[in-house]
Amino acid sequence: MNYNHIFDQAIDRLHGEGRYRVFIDILRNKGAFPNARCFAGHNGPKPITVWCSNDYLSMGQHPKVVAAMEEALHDVGAGSGGTRNIGGNTHYHIELERELADLHGKDGALLFTSGYVSNDATLSTLGKLLPGCVIFSDELNHASMIAGIRNSGCEKRIWRHNDVAHLEELLAAEAPDVPKLIAFESVYSMDGDVAPIHEVCDLAEKYGALTYLDEVHAVGMYGSRGGGISDRDEAAHRLDIIEGTLGKAFGVMGGYIAADQRIIDCIRSYAPGFIFTTSLSPVLAAGVLAAVKHLKQSSVERDGQQASAAMLKAKFREAGLPVMDSTTHIVPLMVGDPVRAKKISDILLAEYGVYVQPINFPTVPRGTERLRFTPGPSHSEVMMDELTTALVEIWERLELQLSIAA
Amino acid sequence: MNYNHIFDQAIDRLHGEGRYRVFIDILRNKGAFPNARCFAGHNGPKPITVWCSNDYLSMGQHPKVVAAMEEALHDVGAGSGGTRNIGGNTHYHIELERELADLHGKDGALLFTSGYVSNDATLSTLGKLLPGCVIFSDELNHASMIAGIRNSGCEKRIWRHNDVAHLEELLAAEAPDVPKLIAFESVYSMDGDVAPIHEVCDLAEKYGALTYLDEVHAVGMYGSRGGGISDRDEAAHRLDIIEGTLGKAFGVMGGYIAADQRIIDCIRSYAPGFIFTTSLSPVLAAGVLAAVKHLKQSSVERDGQQASAAMLKAKFREAGLPVMDSTTHIVPLMVGDPVRAKKISDILLAEYGVYVQPINFPTVPRGTERLRFTPGPSHSEVMMDELTTALVEIWERLELQLSIAA
Repeated sequence: MNYNHIFDQAIDRLHGEGRYRVFIDILRNKGAFPNARCFAGHNGPKPITVWCSNDYLSMGQHPKVVAAMEEALHDVGAGSGGTRNIGGNTHYHIELERELADLHGKDGALLFTSGYVSNDATLSTLGKLLPGCVIFSDELNHASMIAGIRNSGCEKRIWRHNDVAHLEELLAAEAPDVPKLIAFESVYSMDGDVAPIHEVCDLAEKYGALTYLDEVHAVGMYGSRGGGISDRDEAAHRLDIIEGTLGKAFGVMGGYIAADQRIIDCIRSYAPGFIFTTSLSPVLAAGVLAAVKHLKQSSVERDGQQASAAMLKAKFREAGLPVMDSTTHIVPLMVGDPVRAKKISDILLAEYGVYVQPINFPTVPRGTERLRFTPGPSHSEVMMDELTTALVEIWERLELQLSIAA
Repeated sequence: MNYNHIFDQAIDRLHGEGRYRVFIDILRNKGAFPNARCFAGHNGPKPITVWCSNDYLSMGQHPKVVAAMEEALHDVGAGSGGTRNIGGNTHYHIELERELADLHGKDGALLFTSGYVSNDATLSTLGKLLPGCVIFSDELNHASMIAGIRNSGCEKRIWRHNDVAHLEELLAAEAPDVPKLIAFESVYSMDGDVAPIHEVCDLAEKYGALTYLDEVHAVGMYGSRGGGISDRDEAAHRLDIIEGTLGKAFGVMGGYIAADQRIIDCIRSYAPGFIFTTSLSPVLAAGVLAAVKHLKQSSVERDGQQASAAMLKAKFREAGLPVMDSTTHIVPLMVGDPVRAKKISDILLAEYGVYVQPINFPTVPRGTERLRFTPGPSHSEVMMDELTTALVEIWERLELQLSIAA
């Protein structure tokens, strides 16, 4: 067996398609984010502005978060030292789960090492606990939900993106006594559009299905307490399971679900991806606890993010740049080709000190390659003007089309 | 559909078998580990001694680790803010991968959010990249390896634990041109026994198989630089992929693989569990970097752990307690019944301030339930004497058998 040959071919395929990924080597400047330092390909660190972070509200540098992590580090040390069941359950984990349950108006919550793991572990375990369950999955669901559904071994029905008529058609085709689970997201991260949560819940009630909502791109950012779109739309009580991340708007790392205590207890007791892994570092749990508490009572960050997103979209539109019409904080600029998207990104970094990652397959469908900007409360209008000017110059240099409005 | 009824039944099954898990609510005392505080069921925190942590070398409280984490926290902030490809690749990640590659004498390494994820993501992706691959798995492999192998969709052959004759029989039964992957562990965490790495590598060479070794219970603890059993046995260069954790002897959180750059590049580029997840917090990466560097040049912790383990095993044996004969740092005390194991553990915590978790199914096979002690360099002889005395008293109170030697 020539294994090297097989591995080389796998890598060659990526180069051939222009989607071989090179990781940019950066360090953020705490307290001055989105400013950062870039290492690769330069003589020493060079200052850059980060435009593609999922630390949406800059909570990763919030004084309360940093102080809570420092305190935990000095009080209990670096890691938890074990799984939740064997030595790795700390008071921070318990308090954080209580706080997250309250955030979503549920009576329980469960922490995971990442949002990916929470989706994979929960969906695969739910599917195994419900005999003969059929899972109804929005076609644009995240890779981690797809993994969980596949690993559940359940039958899967894929409904067209946000198309409740199609979902109903698929639900109606199953027998009433078949267990059913509808899995979807609130904010879809690459297009920035939003699911019709109440309509999905209406169907779930009509056809007796459980509902599973991924809110990773919404928690902290929507609703009066940051409970996500289900908070904003007052739909949380209608959902069986809400899943979120601690690594985006909450600024740290980790994932969780919130649900009825009965469901929490089942996942806690049966999911290998929860049971057999070292628990979150108490330092991280302490930081998230501070972030969640803060964002429950402060809307300054949410308002700042929405204002930034609206302003950047307006500036792009006025300049004739092909900005996608999103209703959320996500600002996608369409390119439609992986090589060109990478080229624009490379020029931005090398010549303008702007860091925005090109997004290519498999993160988005082929032909919809894009640059994805995530303006937040820390991005100033000056930064936005510089960015827009840079993009227009590159668009002209590469002879790309600007719309009439420009 | 009555979903509640199904969930209730799932929980009732656990109660019925006496293996419903209750998490102990603790906080460690940094600088004084294994001392900790226990919250649940008491009026205020009560001091306890932790005997079941996987922070094997107390690196979670090492001044270098804590200082490195504090520095990173103040320099770059709490979280990475993105996936490795989109905004979440920091200089700490790159340096840590370089350090881990060097630890195992490989030219590359790749970080994951946990050891569980590194096993699941790597094995499932390898299996998918190698068409028709057959995976040979030791029967006692960890749940995360079992998950990865199942998720690969490959044919699986299970060889009897550490039985190379059986492994050869299974390898010989496959056609020479079938891709083969042998997956095993160095130190098996529940029995504390060690795999015959060189013999497995001999077979891999003879039958043209790739080798994947999980060293999570060995990295940091064995070999002159802490590279694990493959370091101690000078076998690292014969293994294709070595997997390890950052959450046990290195004291923090996370996982990794070390291998040829070609394999690293394939996993980095194709594994959804690596691609679609927020990267390790730079605070954690900085802490691990300090831990790995320290343990490469210091053997004090390793020597202390081995001395503690030998002393505790001797004390248990002299007292007639049913200690299992392990050749490593793990000290299993056999009970053989889940209800009794929990009872002993409960008495130890409530009356003696000793925390050791009962280990039950599915972590170990039914009928082999046990208490698993992990003495380390910070456990004193006084602590060991108190523990042994407590166990003998409980053994007599519950009318359990002590061996003649007592």
